[in-house]
Amino acid sequence: MAALRAFKSAESRGEQVPDIVCYEKQDDWGGQWNFTWRTGTDHYGEPVHSSMYRNLWSNGPKEALEFAEYTFDEHFGRPISSYPPREVLWDYIDGRATQSGVKDSVLFAHAVRWTEYDEATGTFTLTVDDLKNKRSLTEEFDEVIVATGHFAFPNVPDFDGIETFPGEVIHAHEFRGAERFAGQRLLLIGGSYSAEDIGIQSHKMGARQVTMSYRSAPQGFAWPDGVDEVPQVASFDGSTATFVDGTSREFDAVILCTGYLHHYPFLPHESQIDSPNNLYPEGLYRGVTWQKNPKIHYLGAQDQWFTFNMFDAQAWFVRDVILGRIELPDPQARQESIDAWLETYSGVEDDAAAVRFQADYIRDLIEQTDYPMFDLDAVVDTFLAWKKDKKTDILTYRDQAYRSVMTGTMAVVHHTAWIDELDDSRERYLSSQPSADEAQDAARPA
Amino acid sequence: MAALRAFKSAESRGEQVPDIVCYEKQDDWGGQWNFTWRTGTDHYGEPVHSSMYRNLWSNGPKEALEFAEYTFDEHFGRPISSYPPREVLWDYIDGRATQSGVKDSVLFAHAVRWTEYDEATGTFTLTVDDLKNKRSLTEEFDEVIVATGHFAFPNVPDFDGIETFPGEVIHAHEFRGAERFAGQRLLLIGGSYSAEDIGIQSHKMGARQVTMSYRSAPQGFAWPDGVDEVPQVASFDGSTATFVDGTSREFDAVILCTGYLHHYPFLPHESQIDSPNNLYPEGLYRGVTWQKNPKIHYLGAQDQWFTFNMFDAQAWFVRDVILGRIELPDPQARQESIDAWLETYSGVEDDAAAVRFQADYIRDLIEQTDYPMFDLDAVVDTFLAWKKDKKTDILTYRDQAYRSVMTGTMAVVHHTAWIDELDDSRERYLSSQPSADEAQDAARPA
Repeated sequence: MAALRAFKSAESRGEQVPDIVCYEKQDDWGGQWNFTWRTGTDHYGEPVHSSMYRNLWSNGPKEALEFAEYTFDEHFGRPISSYPPREVLWDYIDGRATQSGVKDSVLFAHAVRWTEYDEATGTFTLTVDDLKNKRSLTEEFDEVIVATGHFAFPNVPDFDGIETFPGEVIHAHEFRGAERFAGQRLLLIGGSYSAEDIGIQSHKMGARQVTMSYRSAPQGFAWPDGVDEVPQVASFDGSTATFVDGTSREFDAVILCTGYLHHYPFLPHESQIDSPNNLYPEGLYRGVTWQKNPKIHYLGAQDQWFTFNMFDAQAWFVRDVILGRIELPDPQARQESIDAWLETYSGVEDDAAAVRFQADYIRDLIEQTDYPMFDLDAVVDTFLAWKKDKKTDILTYRDQAYRSVMTGTMAVVHHTAWIDELDDSRERYLSSQPSADEAQDAARPA
Repeated sequence: MAALRAFKSAESRGEQVPDIVCYEKQDDWGGQWNFTWRTGTDHYGEPVHSSMYRNLWSNGPKEALEFAEYTFDEHFGRPISSYPPREVLWDYIDGRATQSGVKDSVLFAHAVRWTEYDEATGTFTLTVDDLKNKRSLTEEFDEVIVATGHFAFPNVPDFDGIETFPGEVIHAHEFRGAERFAGQRLLLIGGSYSAEDIGIQSHKMGARQVTMSYRSAPQGFAWPDGVDEVPQVASFDGSTATFVDGTSREFDAVILCTGYLHHYPFLPHESQIDSPNNLYPEGLYRGVTWQKNPKIHYLGAQDQWFTFNMFDAQAWFVRDVILGRIELPDPQARQESIDAWLETYSGVEDDAAAVRFQADYIRDLIEQTDYPMFDLDAVVDTFLAWKKDKKTDILTYRDQAYRSVMTGTMAVVHHTAWIDELDDSRERYLSSQPSADEAQDAARPA
């Protein structure tokens, strides 16, 4: 959606843009934000893309992901809270893309099966499955943008004896809501955002006991009663998990919060990122353009602090490379750029430095295009304050409000605290909002 | 495995056979019988193939699926019961294939990405993903055998309001055991084998209430208390399902027993079967050879009464087509054959006729090859007796014993009734078997 918007933006300023086709295997856009109740494979037999669950609220302040050229104020016409639920965020990204009139460029229910590059002609032949009409298509393209993200194919490691566990065993990718874990003893394997968020969501929905098992280090939040952390799982024997410290517990259900794979089954391996999830995957010039073949570009291939606005910064950069407004340096110069960023990245030792690294990365991109520069340092501060809020109270951080660096608008405090709000619908979220004035009064100091 | 065995059989009789490569996306063979605890996508990011669950026992007598040239007696060295659990059946098919020495022909952890046919050269170019080594390969072939089956991609229709259902919603493909449904109210949507078997399995494992919802007709077995059938689901509202007869019930979990899709993402649609699940999918000469391109062959594309021995009959036939021992008629003659079979099939009006139809189909294939003919009418009788056993008591039909038409051996009665046996392991199954004499005494009259 960022790429489509980027080209539309250039077009609206009178630039000539190439013919663009976007193949989307789902029936609608929105990617991760396009919630589905299905898990596994979908009604076409394709792997389900979205890892979204029913009651998800943004786990970072919306002020840190706001588009610089389509603000929350513009979309909603009034201040909203800092941590909107999924329907509201989908509405925001859908609103921008719909406003741009780019939906006609998207072929929905089209899965790319294979991408073949011809060195001689410099063109790609894409083999595509028109899932609804059951037709196979081939089309030629000059450039390819991979905009699938890398949080759609779960990493599902094996655990000794897990096949004997009698309860539900799913990956976070298949988690669609915690209601069913009320009264249950839940084991979450993993020590990052999925475990944190599914953990407190399950606590909110009445899980009897939430145990999070970490590999490298505990998350260390001030967990409420009934939630705690243990070391790595050594083995399962029926419903009992034993941990590497020798302790063991019984569980009713297990959720693997073990991350995702870079997996691009529609690309030859020579064109596929093969990296752990980090802030600078190897092989991408400026984090987007595939070094081995600079006619392939990836958006959002990084681990992410910044999200929507980073995708924009990348999309505008890639657009200008494709339009020839940005000249790609030769392979050696590109490699020097990659190496320099990797060198800087190797010096990143904590989360604060990581956020700053990503801000610097985005700044570097925006400086080369006409995407509106925004106060990246202020967003870094927002991230750091968010982290502090979480340390203070993992159950209340979503009740805090932040100021937009794009518009200066102070977010309202949501009418209901996150822990008490069971109706996450857009309707409920928007209909019962207090007035902006009331909200200003209620908001914590910025 | 049937195809590999077929070619090996010809080779061992001194025939020249072509170079064969079998691409298998899993780490081991056995297809549906290769149990995995995983659901959704696997450790490589590939859709999980097997729909097997932990405690599955064969749902038809093994005497109806026995290989004609590798008997249960030959493999186990003594009589076993008629309804072995999954590990035992896997052992049987693995034993035959291992004995044949064909494992070297299989490239495991290799997923076929795309299959391109060149009309001019008459060859296929396969694009393959070597999942372990993260390499993309292309290889040329003269003939392609599609042996994936068609029970790996679930059919997951939508239901009004299902996204509001707070409990677990899975497809039968993702069902790995019923232990976790003890004490729960379970809705199974579907009126065929998946619903029947998961239904009684869940009853066995202590589900409080099992409701099966049919679309066309109830299964009509004498269900035990706590198991019953209702018409189609009209809608969900939270945990309440309302049925088309206006009644409604609350549920803790939903399992879609809604069948599977013919889905072959590695083939162009022009080479893909597009059919409901039936005994004679259109477009396949003799049920195996693709009419539009007779260098493509499908094994096991039918709905199945007969299974393993039907796959053999098909594999031997396809082998002989490829070896030139069977001459393919011209397209028009092939179409006449297809039409004649479809015409006969259109007259099939009940299950007994369907079993006979499939027996006739298999007989027709075996008559053309050196696969050992077996008493297909006797197997039809076994199927009809099995159906009668099920009507008599759906909870005890697996305790009955049948006589092998291949060896004349009478099956033993398993030492423990199905409803009481909670340890389905191969070890337990084989270690505590009574002697064959005891078993003969205990067995019901054939």
